[in-house]
Amino acid sequence: MPHDAATPDKPRPSWRDGLPPPPPGPAPESHFAGSQTVRDIVIGVADGLTVPFALAAGLAGTVASNPLIVTAGLAVIAAGCVAKGMGGLLAARTEIAHYAAERRREAQEIHDWPDRERWEVLVILHRQGLRDDILTGATDAICADPDTWVDFMMRFELEMTEPESGLAQRSAMAMGGAYVAGGLIPLLPYMLFSGTRPALILSAVLTAVALTGFGWLKARATGLPPGPGAAQALGVGVAAAALAFVVAGVASR
Amino acid sequence: MPHDAATPDKPRPSWRDGLPPPPPGPAPESHFAGSQTVRDIVIGVADGLTVPFALAAGLAGTVASNPLIVTAGLAVIAAGCVAKGMGGLLAARTEIAHYAAERRREAQEIHDWPDRERWEVLVILHRQGLRDDILTGATDAICADPDTWVDFMMRFELEMTEPESGLAQRSAMAMGGAYVAGGLIPLLPYMLFSGTRPALILSAVLTAVALTGFGWLKARATGLPPGPGAAQALGVGVAAAALAFVVAGVASR
Repeated sequence: MPHDAATPDKPRPSWRDGLPPPPPGPAPESHFAGSQTVRDIVIGVADGLTVPFALAAGLAGTVASNPLIVTAGLAVIAAGCVAKGMGGLLAARTEIAHYAAERRREAQEIHDWPDRERWEVLVILHRQGLRDDILTGATDAICADPDTWVDFMMRFELEMTEPESGLAQRSAMAMGGAYVAGGLIPLLPYMLFSGTRPALILSAVLTAVALTGFGWLKARATGLPPGPGAAQALGVGVAAAALAFVVAGVASR
Repeated sequence: MPHDAATPDKPRPSWRDGLPPPPPGPAPESHFAGSQTVRDIVIGVADGLTVPFALAAGLAGTVASNPLIVTAGLAVIAAGCVAKGMGGLLAARTEIAHYAAERRREAQEIHDWPDRERWEVLVILHRQGLRDDILTGATDAICADPDTWVDFMMRFELEMTEPESGLAQRSAMAMGGAYVAGGLIPLLPYMLFSGTRPALILSAVLTAVALTGFGWLKARATGLPPGPGAAQALGVGVAAAALAFVVAGVASR
């Protein structure tokens, strides 16, 4: 929950006692207009473009005919979609399980070695600049509630934050689906034309435009500068296709 | 730096003043024996297995001959290696730039709106259970040094930790390289045999063994239970290959 502390309009009841009202602060940061799902779809499409385009370009440089390029392209899109979607889904599930296991272990350590774990809180707060009575008082306050204590150790000792259940799983599915849409863009020309050369040229143009556009959107969606993001997506696509072209050319000799 | 506080054998000089010696604690967790590079190579190989295997299996189900399967497989390995290695390299660079930009923004906010940012520290510590004099004293201590203050806000408000420069870039390169090694395993039988069927069978056996083994190692390297990790890697590989097989079969009709 980043920016949690910066939303004083909805204070939790437990925050109120003893806290002064918020002084004026900076305007909230402007974020990407789209929802989480829009963001996932943009990332999925951007990621789906490169490998199918490069595979098709590599095969177009050899003796392969357009129908075979389309077959290989669709097979690699299907495989990539499953690897990305299902892999992401399972990764999200294991991340949640991993956090829960580490939290249980930390709670057990607090139960088994309270002096040692209290000393670790002391060390962390000491590094934050607390001294003397304030140091011991703050340590006592954090260690008074086992939940707060474990939460503090998770953030500061293990640097882990709780993964949001469900969200990552839906993300993985949306990205996997969007990967298919991204992968179909470079393949379309090979479905429309019978000649390899015009299909390759149109595919390169379409993919370059899509890589630039979706690289730009992906960078915006992830809060990065869009110009370099677009250039990088295009650069990776061109490099991947060039290498695939050379490798396929050498391999088919 | 997880577990930083749990390594009292090498205390930083600044920790010492006012801190008691560490009480006895739990034995340090056993970690994967290999170095960071071994870990990256294991992950790269594990990730490289699925898509080339599925592509080859999909094409083997159609009219494609083994030399063409090898050409397509090598092209997709080359493209995937560039996408993974170069993409990971650029992602690591942008992550470092993103952290630096957010940190600059936070430092600027502390400079422009000190009362508001001090109030945010107050809110965060209040949520950790601190009250009254301890609350204001701890807030004063954290806000006494701008570096400590910014660091505290980065961890607790934005939940961001500083990415280690260089490490992520070397990781991406190692993973990209290992991806090639992983991708070559399912392709080897198509290079050795002239018939499609024996190559497909041997490729499936080799890849199943490798997916299980490297899925197991990957789970261990990332601190997850190895048994389910191996089963998941195998499951994703089988599902990807099955879908690629069906899609290629339908497309080539």
